[in-house]
Amino acid sequence: MQSIDLKYLLYPGSVAVAGASASPEKFGHRVLFNIINKGFKGRVYQVNPREKEVLGLESFPNVCDIPGAVDLCVITVPTAGVKSVIEDCVRKGVRAAIVITSGFSEVGAEGAALEAEIAALARRAGLALVGPNCVGMISTHRSLYCHMMPVYPFKGSIAVVAQSGSVADIISLQLCDRGIGISHLISAGNEAVLRIGDYLEYLAGDDRVSVVLSYVEGIRDGRRFADAIKKVTAKKPLIMLKAGSSAAGARAARSHTAALAGSEEVIASLLRQAGVIRADSIEEMVDMACAFSNQPLPVGNRVGIIAPGGGWGVIGADVCSRMGLEVPQLDRATLDKLDAILPPIWSHNNPVDTVAGVKGEAEDMVQALLESPVLDGLMVLGVVGGVQSMWKYIEERMGSKSMTEGFAHGAIERFERYYRDMNVLKDRYGKPVLVSLILPVDIDIIAGTAARLTKETGTACYTSFTQASRAYSALNKYAGYLRKSNTGR
Amino acid sequence: MQSIDLKYLLYPGSVAVAGASASPEKFGHRVLFNIINKGFKGRVYQVNPREKEVLGLESFPNVCDIPGAVDLCVITVPTAGVKSVIEDCVRKGVRAAIVITSGFSEVGAEGAALEAEIAALARRAGLALVGPNCVGMISTHRSLYCHMMPVYPFKGSIAVVAQSGSVADIISLQLCDRGIGISHLISAGNEAVLRIGDYLEYLAGDDRVSVVLSYVEGIRDGRRFADAIKKVTAKKPLIMLKAGSSAAGARAARSHTAALAGSEEVIASLLRQAGVIRADSIEEMVDMACAFSNQPLPVGNRVGIIAPGGGWGVIGADVCSRMGLEVPQLDRATLDKLDAILPPIWSHNNPVDTVAGVKGEAEDMVQALLESPVLDGLMVLGVVGGVQSMWKYIEERMGSKSMTEGFAHGAIERFERYYRDMNVLKDRYGKPVLVSLILPVDIDIIAGTAARLTKETGTACYTSFTQASRAYSALNKYAGYLRKSNTGR
Repeated sequence: MQSIDLKYLLYPGSVAVAGASASPEKFGHRVLFNIINKGFKGRVYQVNPREKEVLGLESFPNVCDIPGAVDLCVITVPTAGVKSVIEDCVRKGVRAAIVITSGFSEVGAEGAALEAEIAALARRAGLALVGPNCVGMISTHRSLYCHMMPVYPFKGSIAVVAQSGSVADIISLQLCDRGIGISHLISAGNEAVLRIGDYLEYLAGDDRVSVVLSYVEGIRDGRRFADAIKKVTAKKPLIMLKAGSSAAGARAARSHTAALAGSEEVIASLLRQAGVIRADSIEEMVDMACAFSNQPLPVGNRVGIIAPGGGWGVIGADVCSRMGLEVPQLDRATLDKLDAILPPIWSHNNPVDTVAGVKGEAEDMVQALLESPVLDGLMVLGVVGGVQSMWKYIEERMGSKSMTEGFAHGAIERFERYYRDMNVLKDRYGKPVLVSLILPVDIDIIAGTAARLTKETGTACYTSFTQASRAYSALNKYAGYLRKSNTGR
Repeated sequence: MQSIDLKYLLYPGSVAVAGASASPEKFGHRVLFNIINKGFKGRVYQVNPREKEVLGLESFPNVCDIPGAVDLCVITVPTAGVKSVIEDCVRKGVRAAIVITSGFSEVGAEGAALEAEIAALARRAGLALVGPNCVGMISTHRSLYCHMMPVYPFKGSIAVVAQSGSVADIISLQLCDRGIGISHLISAGNEAVLRIGDYLEYLAGDDRVSVVLSYVEGIRDGRRFADAIKKVTAKKPLIMLKAGSSAAGARAARSHTAALAGSEEVIASLLRQAGVIRADSIEEMVDMACAFSNQPLPVGNRVGIIAPGGGWGVIGADVCSRMGLEVPQLDRATLDKLDAILPPIWSHNNPVDTVAGVKGEAEDMVQALLESPVLDGLMVLGVVGGVQSMWKYIEERMGSKSMTEGFAHGAIERFERYYRDMNVLKDRYGKPVLVSLILPVDIDIIAGTAARLTKETGTACYTSFTQASRAYSALNKYAGYLRKSNTGR
């Protein structure tokens, strides 16, 4: 049995598609289409014994007929034909294979037997085999999109490893929506050979990767998995969505990728001890990744909250407390600084309720809070300060636009300006500042503005307190883990 | 002491603004501006001893100088002047007053004493007094927007009652974003006279109101509150966001509206026994209200899940189970119907994984599931069915648009079509069908499409599984409460 190196899988120099088809509705066509159209930086071959050419590429009847070396072979032939393609790959000296084809252990005993044969073949030959029953793989640093769906995340440093292709797709594309690119999308499928632990271990040592996101339904390689997650968290954050924790979810996982979900208690403790950040939903995972992508880690768990309305602050304090953050009272010096900015009836408290109609500007208040020795970071809710100038904006535009539209434009303009200033302050003080765009304006304007600001500034803009608090708490948890394990960063 | 009737507050025939100002940055100006510009269906007066007219309305030096009857007086004069305006209101026979002015019990003992004097005056005279320290009130059925901010929710049947104006604003406007109008926005402020329980009791008996949403920081009138919530839930759903449950949140609530948050355990049990649906965030409250606004209540807690990807189904099953829903195995007849539509390797399970590349159409699969005797309702995740036709769409548009854009348009078009069909099926079978728009396309397109579909169809379109599951579970909880209390609906 040969040792397996994932380098040829994740950064191949040449790729062959076995089962490339001229019919656009076949996945063999889609995969080749994506590889060619997204401009893979290497040689592309296609294998099809029945067609002369597919998508402008000459057909080779067999992998072994390809003249040059083949690092990676993507296999989309029908289930019954997969084994002989793998045999050909071994003969040809191919280093890695991705079996997209399904119909193996996830459908029953017969499929499982066939899967075991293929796995044995690959292991003996040191072939890095992904799948079967997966959507493919993306490696943006090689411009390689060997994926069966029209999913084209752009280049970045976040790796996504998932036991579900459709989940990996949504994670990757929601990241891109927020302006954050990925390094890899890996769909593990049935894990006949390569398992989550193998991918994680490789990514731990890959300098192109700064954060790892992983969707896991079941753990097949307990010890290796346990080792690998610790290797990742020692170097970079690992955010995991562990599904199949309910009976119905576990049953669904079994018929999905034949994975056994395992005991929730055992897994929870394993992940906690290794400093893995757990997400409860895809959106939460994306929110957390956004925070890690450009925020400094807080040096402690004390957070300041500033909001233009008292109720918002109360909700914010509740959510932060629930997430294990401390919302401390403010120190004298900070109270004095805020007294000079805010009207006398302001809350004199953390959360800072700036009181409606405030004359102070957001930047000054945020700066005062970031200078406070009792705060390690800040959450800014909504549009803080400058209500007066928004009114003026509405008044001026009353003739041509509806009042609500006038308000929307004035408020968004104002928010955008101070969001940029806030990022400068975050860098100056080295403390995380998470900002939520909450405004009484249309939901698509909010979502679009937040996404655009995240893209343009590289710093996450959230659209709810809860969302931002969860992301902040992820920073805090990982920072706490690193402090505890004295790893430094 | 007179009895207080909220009719004059919530449906007044005439309104006076005391403290109306010619300076646009003053709240007295903003409130009058909003009342006039939003077309209140009644007489409007303004009281200002120093100006001859404000916003085109003749000034009366004192409330008592107004010639006609005044049902409601909105007070925006400085703190020190509030008491004498209340005295004038009592003398004039005004029936209700809203004190927007702040600087009372929320700022200390002196303010509290003044507040107590005002409250005593109002109680003696049977004056329905709102506040002090609130943002105002909206009653859409009277086209009355006596509110200090540019917040203009449209007419509908959802009442919003909150101990925070800024929270009430965001709830109302997020509802409108989703196409759901409100009947009232009530900002309770410091609750010197009228308290949450009073508002809830009135709204329980108001036929213009179908759902009540309430944001509560502290309960001042325990017994009345307990009675009122039961009166509401006997007739209509009551969704509550109870804040101040953490120490920091409780502290913030105290300085916000001088409310004591109370024991979380006691309140939790009180709300549970009364069948109140609790929301954890503003977004969740809005999601739940959307579900109640146009979905039938499920007759049991068994839910079907259908998704185009295995992982999505696993996550969906986990979330539903966590929310107390049952995700049962499918019956033989339903399995047979799906076998006729789906390729042989489909999951044969609930969640139904339609398997990538499926030829079946969403409507047929949804219909089969709605006919199942083991399912009381359905969650549909993403774009189910028709992947082939989306590919074709992309292919056709490859020349002029990017592949991702082509996919986005094809997928959204398809989703819109089947979303409408899904609503027809929901009505035909009388079972709730909650649909999530999850697609690998830009986040503002998703948010905008979901909001537009909700507006156009009147039926909530969600943008995440978690969001949809929470909303479904709210329907299920309230249905369970009604069954248990034998109230019927």
